[in-house]
Amino acid sequence: MFARNLWYVAAWADEVTTVPLARTFLNEPVVLFRGTGGSVAALEDRCCHRALPLRHGDVVGDCLRCAYHGLEYDLNGQCVRIPGQDKIPSKARVKAYQVVERDDLIWIWMGEAEKADASKIPAYPWHRDSKWKYRKNTYLIDADHLLIYDNLLDLTHLGYVHKQTIGGDAETHFAATTKTTRTDNGVRVERWMLDCVPPPTYTSSYTFGTDRVDRWQEIEFEPGLVRIFTGAKDVGTGAPEGNRDGGFGFRGLNAMTPETDDTTHYFWSAAHNFRLDEPSVTDEIYRNIVITFGEDKEIIESQYRSMKRTPDRPFIDIGFDIAPVQARRLWAAMIKAESAPAPL
Amino acid sequence: MFARNLWYVAAWADEVTTVPLARTFLNEPVVLFRGTGGSVAALEDRCCHRALPLRHGDVVGDCLRCAYHGLEYDLNGQCVRIPGQDKIPSKARVKAYQVVERDDLIWIWMGEAEKADASKIPAYPWHRDSKWKYRKNTYLIDADHLLIYDNLLDLTHLGYVHKQTIGGDAETHFAATTKTTRTDNGVRVERWMLDCVPPPTYTSSYTFGTDRVDRWQEIEFEPGLVRIFTGAKDVGTGAPEGNRDGGFGFRGLNAMTPETDDTTHYFWSAAHNFRLDEPSVTDEIYRNIVITFGEDKEIIESQYRSMKRTPDRPFIDIGFDIAPVQARRLWAAMIKAESAPAPL
Amino acid sequence: MFARNLWYVAAWADEVTTVPLARTFLNEPVVLFRGTGGSVAALEDRCCHRALPLRHGDVVGDCLRCAYHGLEYDLNGQCVRIPGQDKIPSKARVKAYQVVERDDLIWIWMGEAEKADASKIPAYPWHRDSKWKYRKNTYLIDADHLLIYDNLLDLTHLGYVHKQTIGGDAETHFAATTKTTRTDNGVRVERWMLDCVPPPTYTSSYTFGTDRVDRWQEIEFEPGLVRIFTGAKDVGTGAPEGNRDGGFGFRGLNAMTPETDDTTHYFWSAAHNFRLDEPSVTDEIYRNIVITFGEDKEIIESQYRSMKRTPDRPFIDIGFDIAPVQARRLWAAMIKAESAPAPL
Ligand code: FES
Ligand code: FES
Ligand code: FES
Repeated sequence: MFARNLWYVAAWADEVTTVPLARTFLNEPVVLFRGTGGSVAALEDRCCHRALPLRHGDVVGDCLRCAYHGLEYDLNGQCVRIPGQDKIPSKARVKAYQVVERDDLIWIWMGEAEKADASKIPAYPWHRDSKWKYRKNTYLIDADHLLIYDNLLDLTHLGYVHKQTIGGDAETHFAATTKTTRTDNGVRVERWMLDCVPPPTYTSSYTFGTDRVDRWQEIEFEPGLVRIFTGAKDVGTGAPEGNRDGGFGFRGLNAMTPETDDTTHYFWSAAHNFRLDEPSVTDEIYRNIVITFGEDKEIIESQYRSMKRTPDRPFIDIGFDIAPVQARRLWAAMIKAESAPAPL
Repeated sequence: MFARNLWYVAAWADEVTTVPLARTFLNEPVVLFRGTGGSVAALEDRCCHRALPLRHGDVVGDCLRCAYHGLEYDLNGQCVRIPGQDKIPSKARVKAYQVVERDDLIWIWMGEAEKADASKIPAYPWHRDSKWKYRKNTYLIDADHLLIYDNLLDLTHLGYVHKQTIGGDAETHFAATTKTTRTDNGVRVERWMLDCVPPPTYTSSYTFGTDRVDRWQEIEFEPGLVRIFTGAKDVGTGAPEGNRDGGFGFRGLNAMTPETDDTTHYFWSAAHNFRLDEPSVTDEIYRNIVITFGEDKEIIESQYRSMKRTPDRPFIDIGFDIAPVQARRLWAAMIKAESAPAPL
Repeated sequence: MFARNLWYVAAWADEVTTVPLARTFLNEPVVLFRGTGGSVAALEDRCCHRALPLRHGDVVGDCLRCAYHGLEYDLNGQCVRIPGQDKIPSKARVKAYQVVERDDLIWIWMGEAEKADASKIPAYPWHRDSKWKYRKNTYLIDADHLLIYDNLLDLTHLGYVHKQTIGGDAETHFAATTKTTRTDNGVRVERWMLDCVPPPTYTSSYTFGTDRVDRWQEIEFEPGLVRIFTGAKDVGTGAPEGNRDGGFGFRGLNAMTPETDDTTHYFWSAAHNFRLDEPSVTDEIYRNIVITFGEDKEIIESQYRSMKRTPDRPFIDIGFDIAPVQARRLWAAMIKAESAPAPL
């Protein structure tokens, strides 16, 4: 059961080319392609003739041609050519999904067509901001997407899951001041670890002026993604008061799109705001995230298999579950609203 | 749901030796073997003692001995020895299937025993004809067998699926004259492409006298197999009128036997009628078919997965579907006849 | 359907260390670990917080700490620490299973807790006896555990399945005198092959005084394991009368613990009572068993797949099935007793 009336990330913009890209979203097989005119389209990945997935096809102009018997579909899914015959039945078409290219991402609308509103697409301007450099990847996670939100919204696991990498000492994380607030459309967590030792992943690419820093973590959830802004500055140089210039700043995009009931596309990017001209720094930060997310992936997938085995057993909540629990309530409310009968 | 009352190909004759060969047909596990006397038998692949598949056993004379506790079965499936005891219960037997060796093939009858009639076995004399040379293979296709008939009966896909190999230009295929006729027991398609350029797979092994040829494709379907006879001769030398001597002639056997609901044994051979003394020519023609069928296999298996996902969605038919649709009707009629109550 | 109220082998003692060992028994995922104090515990492999399997965790003192958010469980499954909070809900606990370390094995009780009685644990003193040397292994068999009992209790298969290894001539095995008796808690088979040629696996590590030997096989079944005592002595030197000193003696432990309905843990050891100071002899005997059990594994797993396909079809019994049939009756009676309503 997924919320459908929201924009999900379908792909990185540079993944969608004139070579068709097949991806399943919310259990529906979709084929993405870019016409030779540059427009992006997302069609149902099933030819209406004999069901061959269109992923095998070729882009011909602004059409996708089925690899089996050559039917051609335009960007709207309408069949515009049937080899060997002039008449094209009006039913010869496949479903088309609305897509928007923005912030280096392709966003897709899997819900009720008339409710799609491109102005509601979550912003992620840092992909286009010259003060930031980023690298990105796409993972397939063998777990329900909600487990990834749980993980991202609860940063106390850093001290356990990531004790060898970005985590550092577990006690530091429990001692952090944590403020959780509801936003218009999501949940926001702000944490401060004042006067602490920076973790190895910070010092490996950034040189602080002192041994101790003020360290922050801001996590913004809205359905479809989590923005993470973390960083640190020399202790006592004004970070908590709002001046974060000149420190170590990291921005992470985490966009989750359900593939099936049991699997999730995880699109992530890692951006930094210092040493912008040194690709090796960008690479080093990226590599740290690869390691970190690899640790999370192993935990989350094992956790999901365990949950699937006993789906009805209750959990014991603990204090740090506030933000994840709020996010889950928000999803549940969306799903409930979508399944409610329309107002009179 | 399979038609059962017909002869299916079970194996190539040289595949069946004194080393048992296990194969599933129509969801039933069968073990084929050749007694030391040369006779071929096909038994249920399950020992009646403790269910061990007999495939693990040894041929001893004209018997198959179970690998676990040594029960021995004769060619008719009757247990004729139980180690350590003299009395053999009459129930100690396994099912035996009727098999016939003909045209280098082993044919099996999976239907009602009393309806088996070896004179109804489809002929394929070219395996034994000194004017033809052939090579063969056995594929397992992850798809319903009907999809393979669809593929073989509609040669317009040559221009798309096989554009790099036997296909050549797609438009040539649409422009071909096509005559589809019902035969006693099947469907026959005859196509002519007059005054056209021969495809690369023809010219790679045969030297025509001119640049342009008259090219034919004859496809004969009957339940269980499709015979394909294709070829070309120098343009205007009488091929359409019936004189095909001296040209490039190819005969393909395509025998499909359902393994399970989702998988099909595909036995095929490729024969040619020129340069018979040059094994490299036979090999070259065989290799072209390997490549071609590899392309078909990928398409058909992907198509089948797609169909399985949405089994109840209708298809849009196009003009070229005549022969495949007729063949499917014939199968449906056979299945209906088999499930009808017996006449009074 | 498993009998639960008996002690099953869970692991070899040296497999259980401060690195958690995850194993499923009777369809229940369990994690075994050894506290730093040396005690062994077996807990449900599912954290009560968010279901992460505890196998990922770390042993901290005599506790197991969950790898995700750090909850700590003691040897009894009680949660004794929740990071970041003082109060621990009483429901914060996981199931603990009773375990006993004995004879180099860890035994586990998966049944009703109040019925566990460590004095009922089957004895296997030869692991701790200086007159015997052994090597061991743990296999996972893709079959129901009862098929392994069938195999071990019927040694006529030696002449077929193991004709290349420990079997030797099949006729020798049928000619053996076989005595099958019910014991208090199981079945005992005693077989003698007098004045016969010793099999290659005997002569490869032991030099007899003569060409012919008296050979014995004693098989003791009780639910959970089979003890095998086989050997041979120079013909006519008193073995059948009870004097087995100075011959070739072999003791095999075979302990089967269901993992799931379809898979079984198979713990086995191979001990011998001669040339005790020569590790190469112990290795040679071990290697012979590895080969032999590999042959059995292939047969048993194939047999199980075959049985699963047609679960309701009956079997034909033969004379040598007496002991296996008795053992199966004993299991059936245990299962029936466990599912019976408690007495008033
Ligand atoms: S399946 Fe697409 S054109 Fe036939
Ligand atoms: S299973 Fe075939 S003889 Fe026992
Ligand atoms: S899942 Fe174990 S501590 Fe959270």
